[in-house]
Amino acid sequence: MTIIFHELVGADSSRPFSPHCWKTAMSLAHKGLPFERRQVCFTKVPEVEGGVSRTVPVIRDGSQVIADSFMIAAYLEETHPDKPSLFGGEGGQAMARFIESWTNTVLHGAMRDIALMDIHNALAPADQAYFRTSREARMGMTLEQVAEGRAKALEALPATLLPLRTTLKRQPWIGGSSPLFADYIVFGALQWVRLTAGISLVETADPVGDWFERCLDLHDGLGRSAPAAV
Amino acid sequence: MTIIFHELVGADSSRPFSPHCWKTAMSLAHKGLPFERRQVCFTKVPEVEGGVSRTVPVIRDGSQVIADSFMIAAYLEETHPDKPSLFGGEGGQAMARFIESWTNTVLHGAMRDIALMDIHNALAPADQAYFRTSREARMGMTLEQVAEGRAKALEALPATLLPLRTTLKRQPWIGGSSPLFADYIVFGALQWVRLTAGISLVETADPVGDWFERCLDLHDGLGRSAPAAV
Repeated sequence: MTIIFHELVGADSSRPFSPHCWKTAMSLAHKGLPFERRQVCFTKVPEVEGGVSRTVPVIRDGSQVIADSFMIAAYLEETHPDKPSLFGGEGGQAMARFIESWTNTVLHGAMRDIALMDIHNALAPADQAYFRTSREARMGMTLEQVAEGRAKALEALPATLLPLRTTLKRQPWIGGSSPLFADYIVFGALQWVRLTAGISLVETADPVGDWFERCLDLHDGLGRSAPAAV
Repeated sequence: MTIIFHELVGADSSRPFSPHCWKTAMSLAHKGLPFERRQVCFTKVPEVEGGVSRTVPVIRDGSQVIADSFMIAAYLEETHPDKPSLFGGEGGQAMARFIESWTNTVLHGAMRDIALMDIHNALAPADQAYFRTSREARMGMTLEQVAEGRAKALEALPATLLPLRTTLKRQPWIGGSSPLFADYIVFGALQWVRLTAGISLVETADPVGDWFERCLDLHDGLGRSAPAAV
């Protein structure tokens, strides 16, 4: 049965930009499961599947409704143990939580400092007011003030990416010899900026840039099918 | 057969302080293997097992000699698959490399900024000159200049630990429901400071501090058997 996948979208439906939704798109493709994308804008998220979650991704698989990208990956792993693993065992599932924590607290912060205004500008007009109010309250400054720090945030990025770069000098994927959910967690953050700001954050000569290009190629170019912002 | 474990020691043989050697001590105990500790000071490391490595830990298991804490853990996992796993599967082994990269590049840097002068002072007199020359060349400043930044490094530590804190709010160990090698990687860094500077970096009320105390209790209190610096 086709899985229904609810994902966030801004003004341009060809560029769904949510890092968390990309984790789920890649997870579904990794398991080789057919899925149908249903796009929703920020302010309509509370109506998805009867209001099951304040955020997307949300999937519906028959009678099962699951929210949260990590919970969805764990659900897919449990219901399809015969398909390629997303975690590579129990230890991998536990350690993917550390990689998620690093991505959410360190990498997403860096991405936000670089691309917050671009993300705002990519939203549907109805969503922009909500986004501005909620983000300015969270960050304690205006979007314009955040944007003033962009050059400095870009300058700090190579150091921020050092744990990732060191890992990818040793092995082709965070998951080892082949990609796992941990790769999709980090991919989501860079894809988010690619689709909103369009700037190439890392050169392909850098192990991180090379890995990101290989992520874009995975699953018949699923990630690359959404064009970078111009 | 008893495994020979070569570990670094300073002036006080009761406080072997190397973070990398602690990873190996905990790995051997985790596998329940008998081992004999052989202590070596910095300047004698090149003589260990015929000069097999520039660094310790080094173990000898019968005719096998293995250097590097991660390679040793991988060797123990491969040779003792029947004993408790150090990685929890292939995915866990790959992702432990990311946790190692984060620890080496981010956490060890923070520890060094906090405890470098204490580490120097804990060394045998013969090692202090080597340590000062090599570290000052690497860091481009004197040990005294590094020490001037100590208060600032301590202030920055809670933010540095955020990915770890976020993980440990969700699950008792980095390895999930029980400790894995990934826990010992991070434990080594905090144990290093406990044995050289003695300062309690995190309160036990903090998930990181609580986890560190539980690490010290593991394997019949192996980590706690070395007394904190006073």
